[in-house]
Amino acid sequence: MFTLRHPLLLASQSPRRRQILEMLGFAFTVEASDTDETPPEGTASQDIPGILAERKALVLSALKPEMLVIGSDTLVEIDDEVLGKPADEDEGLAMLKRLNGRTHRVYTGVALARGGALIGTATGRTAVTFTSWSESDLENYVRSGEPMDKAGSYAIQGQGAFLVEKIDGCFYNVMGLPVQETLKLLVPHRADAAMR
Amino acid sequence: MFTLRHPLLLASQSPRRRQILEMLGFAFTVEASDTDETPPEGTASQDIPGILAERKALVLSALKPEMLVIGSDTLVEIDDEVLGKPADEDEGLAMLKRLNGRTHRVYTGVALARGGALIGTATGRTAVTFTSWSESDLENYVRSGEPMDKAGSYAIQGQGAFLVEKIDGCFYNVMGLPVQETLKLLVPHRADAAMR
Repeated sequence: MFTLRHPLLLASQSPRRRQILEMLGFAFTVEASDTDETPPEGTASQDIPGILAERKALVLSALKPEMLVIGSDTLVEIDDEVLGKPADEDEGLAMLKRLNGRTHRVYTGVALARGGALIGTATGRTAVTFTSWSESDLENYVRSGEPMDKAGSYAIQGQGAFLVEKIDGCFYNVMGLPVQETLKLLVPHRADAAMR
Repeated sequence: MFTLRHPLLLASQSPRRRQILEMLGFAFTVEASDTDETPPEGTASQDIPGILAERKALVLSALKPEMLVIGSDTLVEIDDEVLGKPADEDEGLAMLKRLNGRTHRVYTGVALARGGALIGTATGRTAVTFTSWSESDLENYVRSGEPMDKAGSYAIQGQGAFLVEKIDGCFYNVMGLPVQETLKLLVPHRADAAMR
């Protein structure tokens, strides 16, 4: 449905991001970009994913100058603190107990680059409200292994859906790629854009 | 993760509902129930899915009295009018043009029955806001065939995601089954419920 004028490259190994771009009807290839994921000191939480997305897109774009390169980064924030991927089951459980029964925010930055130059960046924001579960239910979920490679220790597109009471914003932003922000960056590069 | 004291039967042929129940970690079987889908005259839109879900669960439960039977029904509402599945591409396009750039509501009723008697019913509500697309983009989407068997003529879990700016509520409710409402009905029947 969305045919672009240049080949598209997704700078992410995340199977979730791949799934979302495919679902939207884009053809693309995938390559991991090896970038420094430490944000500049003092960066506000909601600005971090955009900065990291830009780095990922720029690094690969310099190596593949003929391609449109899309980079992305997702972050979970609660009480002005960033929750990353848990180091082990204990940390996973601690994160879930902290999110339990409360509302947190998920920010996903997306950046587009070509020829080593940035074309644009945008960040999606979704508020996620968790229902309350007992510690033993949260423990069972941690033991399933699903939380281990997920920012905030849950997967909204997996069994972790049992945690979520409601969301306000884009669902796919929580999964790894904000739909409208991504489309706003890519649609100007449609093959039929001149006809529009 | 959720083991029930009785075998669970889903009274729906919808692959989306099956997918959501599986994702949440339930074991179950599927059977279609042949029920009258005409609501009582004058029923308010948001009450219809619960009534139809009850009928579906009750009919199958009478035939399979040993099982926990879950029924469900989804409805799209805008301007106090119900949008069903489109009869053809023209009707699909007309629905999408009506939803374009605006907010509508999705109600999914879920009902649980056993031994021919109703245990409980609940209805999830999600507000869905569409972004604005050109008529030719909406036409392209209709021509993909995806809208044809979907209430409101779109699939939020498919290419139709390109239409959605944001949601307020449960994503899976739009897809076909409200997560927390379903869990509230099923969790009291957990095999380990006595220990809780």
